[in-house]
Amino acid sequence: MTATGRIRHAGLAAKVVDAEQAAAHIRHGDTVGMSGFTGAGYPKAVPQALARRITAAHDAGDPFRVDVWTGASTAPELDGALAAADGIELRLPYQSDPVSRQKINDGLMEYIDVHLSHVAQLAWEGFLGPLDVAVVEVSGITAEGDLVPSSSIGNNKTWLDRAERVVLEVNAWQSADLEGMHDVYYGTALPPDRRPIQLVHPGDRIGVPYLRVDPAKVVAVVESDVPDRNTAFAAPDDTARRIAGHLIEFLEHEVSRGRLPAQLLPLQSGVGNVANAVLAGLEESRFEQLTAYTEVIQDGMLDLLRSGRMTLASATAFSLSPAAVDDFTAHARDFRNRIVLRPQEISNHPELVRRLGVLAMNGMIEADLYGNVNSTHLMGSRIQNGIGGSGDFARNAFISFFVTPSTAKGGAISAIVPMVSHVDHTEHDVHVIVTEHGLADLRGLAPRRRAQVVVDRCAAPEYRPLLTDYVDRAQAAAYGRHTPHLLAEALSWHVRYVETGSMLPS
Amino acid sequence: MTATGRIRHAGLAAKVVDAEQAAAHIRHGDTVGMSGFTGAGYPKAVPQALARRITAAHDAGDPFRVDVWTGASTAPELDGALAAADGIELRLPYQSDPVSRQKINDGLMEYIDVHLSHVAQLAWEGFLGPLDVAVVEVSGITAEGDLVPSSSIGNNKTWLDRAERVVLEVNAWQSADLEGMHDVYYGTALPPDRRPIQLVHPGDRIGVPYLRVDPAKVVAVVESDVPDRNTAFAAPDDTARRIAGHLIEFLEHEVSRGRLPAQLLPLQSGVGNVANAVLAGLEESRFEQLTAYTEVIQDGMLDLLRSGRMTLASATAFSLSPAAVDDFTAHARDFRNRIVLRPQEISNHPELVRRLGVLAMNGMIEADLYGNVNSTHLMGSRIQNGIGGSGDFARNAFISFFVTPSTAKGGAISAIVPMVSHVDHTEHDVHVIVTEHGLADLRGLAPRRRAQVVVDRCAAPEYRPLLTDYVDRAQAAAYGRHTPHLLAEALSWHVRYVETGSMLPS
Repeated sequence: MTATGRIRHAGLAAKVVDAEQAAAHIRHGDTVGMSGFTGAGYPKAVPQALARRITAAHDAGDPFRVDVWTGASTAPELDGALAAADGIELRLPYQSDPVSRQKINDGLMEYIDVHLSHVAQLAWEGFLGPLDVAVVEVSGITAEGDLVPSSSIGNNKTWLDRAERVVLEVNAWQSADLEGMHDVYYGTALPPDRRPIQLVHPGDRIGVPYLRVDPAKVVAVVESDVPDRNTAFAAPDDTARRIAGHLIEFLEHEVSRGRLPAQLLPLQSGVGNVANAVLAGLEESRFEQLTAYTEVIQDGMLDLLRSGRMTLASATAFSLSPAAVDDFTAHARDFRNRIVLRPQEISNHPELVRRLGVLAMNGMIEADLYGNVNSTHLMGSRIQNGIGGSGDFARNAFISFFVTPSTAKGGAISAIVPMVSHVDHTEHDVHVIVTEHGLADLRGLAPRRRAQVVVDRCAAPEYRPLLTDYVDRAQAAAYGRHTPHLLAEALSWHVRYVETGSMLPS
Repeated sequence: MTATGRIRHAGLAAKVVDAEQAAAHIRHGDTVGMSGFTGAGYPKAVPQALARRITAAHDAGDPFRVDVWTGASTAPELDGALAAADGIELRLPYQSDPVSRQKINDGLMEYIDVHLSHVAQLAWEGFLGPLDVAVVEVSGITAEGDLVPSSSIGNNKTWLDRAERVVLEVNAWQSADLEGMHDVYYGTALPPDRRPIQLVHPGDRIGVPYLRVDPAKVVAVVESDVPDRNTAFAAPDDTARRIAGHLIEFLEHEVSRGRLPAQLLPLQSGVGNVANAVLAGLEESRFEQLTAYTEVIQDGMLDLLRSGRMTLASATAFSLSPAAVDDFTAHARDFRNRIVLRPQEISNHPELVRRLGVLAMNGMIEADLYGNVNSTHLMGSRIQNGIGGSGDFARNAFISFFVTPSTAKGGAISAIVPMVSHVDHTEHDVHVIVTEHGLADLRGLAPRRRAQVVVDRCAAPEYRPLLTDYVDRAQAAAYGRHTPHLLAEALSWHVRYVETGSMLPS
């Protein structure tokens, strides 16, 4: 037992050191698997101590860079600190940190943008090379040495299994009532030994509530008491509320046509203000007994659970505002039976997304006339964040929705363009596109018809005539009339933006 | 019992009519679900009779067009005849007929290019509207009224279940020994009622050997004795043999590194000469006890089964040369225990592709520097065939390979371009690219490194300096250095080809 009372295993309690001593176990050239998913459950102390070690090494003229694998995005204490210290050689599978993003786009840092459900498999297969160290935040250690996960699970099971050395951060800030909320499935395997995953409802528990680790591999345990990066969501603005309205109207229409059950199907919702607005819209809707099979539980979903409109949510992480964290902590025991946190290989698993018939709702950067979606790149070259789980869900969803305001940068950028500058979701995988102007249901439409509804329903009024003009000329002059494009100008809107600061002609 | 002896159910035997009478059950505006997958198992007589009806109606000044859904591609007697008669309003989910292709690219026919595993689900959900008629080829009808499938299953189960009226073509040309080879799984459902599909090995039988139909829905039975569209494959040329060589060397390397089992994992192989060359290469390799979990069994796979190098193949259809058909027919009983034909929703199911860890090998039209693949469009606008099952397999494969000769049209077209003109498989889903010049393993590589290996390993020598020049200038001047592109010229190679007939500058 240590000061925080969170380490109940004597052997591991004996390994408590400070962050500096723990970080000393990480060496130049190491690959480090860290916990963390969407600003939750990432180690807070060791990465900053590592950044200080790296800076000291660089000051002394010594090289010191590591490869960093995580669950998804983390926080300034991890991605920000290590990127600022020029300490990351290669980063995967997702990031959203501004310092890190700048390094990547300056060509100073390698970044592999991987489907989140694929990471554990890639690590097991050995394609990515060995994992030297795992640095994993937990909320406690049981007397038996089992690890109580914290506010995200992400790839922690895989990091703990695969790493040669393990550093644990035991964070007393995390609610002690998290214990019992997690479901860690230890049944995955590499082919040919894979078996069906026997999960048929979002709330099914198929694993154990703890992470396991071989105590002999644990080289250091660090105690911390630091909050997650909890950022407040903006209150839904008019644009977000209109997007939510179109989406909910569509869902009601599908129910009335008998194509969706009255309680819908399990919802997946990307992170952000628009997604939060959709969840807020559902709170005001007539839908009841909703469920979620998603990556992240954010404020709006907690509201749905509290009101009872949602009966159950499965995810791999929280992403809450400070106010929502307080609310969650105060009522964690009530939430515990209605929230299941899973490893991301299960929360995002194609087998389960397909079986459950998930309704996948994700944000995007831009969509084109024919329903191709860009989720990751600005003007074709500059990475924004990454594909995250959007592909995991959209690829196997029952219905895949992509939502965005119709313009950005005060109207200088149209989210509906003739041709997207990068494709993350192909025309074959995108069912519905929504902006504040309306909803385009692309299912069962051939390409030329898709162009018509995308322009009519989703484009901003000031861009509509430009798009219609392009469509008309492309239909007259394209090399083929199946997906009519004028390749010499298909990307000219992006070129114009880079050159003039606006996609609109001057 | 009828003339051919293939109709052993008295009630259905009483419904035998000629093709003209059967086609009279199909009306203007109908949606018709037809059997057929890759030139196998499609109805031969009724579609031609329908084409004659349509032509007669058009000659009389009456409108007559139908929507046509199939498994995948069919043959001149179906797609060709109906397209030539201007009888198809909308076609899905795949086609490869030259007449049909021309109509689509002339803007005279709607075409929806759908993942083959998604079609049955879309039809059930009702998104595509009602199915009026099913026209399904079978190889026999049992005394109990069960249908013995023919040389493909495709979407027949779904068409028979969903259609209001059913026309059966009983083809006595099909081997009587097909009986018992099929495995029709009746366990699929719409969410939330989906359950795990309990298949863990490519050879597992989880269904029944027959298709079911409500006899009351059968409005006509037609007898035929006509061969499938069996086209001979070209003998592998030097280019195809070199592609196969690189691929097999890679597989051997992966086995030697312990990343693949010695007997590999179940193979999926696209259709065509290059795919056939890869299969021929495997025949000469050291691999043993191979299995396949694929769409189509073509000549090379039959050879592997005959030699015993492959123990078992699961597919949804045959696609054999005339010589291979003779061989198959002569030994159908021997093959019967080592071939399983399934509905395409099962042969291509994401859950099963992921679980089995399929090694997915598909052809393509072009790939770009960063690993995006175009499988469907020429110069961004003109459809070639369609995505078929390549997305079903690549999206959830253990390793996804895309193979192509490095050039087409005598060198006027490079299969490696700065940016593909259409994306069917994104950078996130493409693991390995192979041409006759070499193999680019893109796993674990950030975009700039991918560009380097794609150019060095895969591009044709005459295009390599042009690609390197583009890469160098893009890395210096792009809007971001993560995926460096010069958008004003990213598609200029395609523009040049359309304008001058060659991607090479004059």
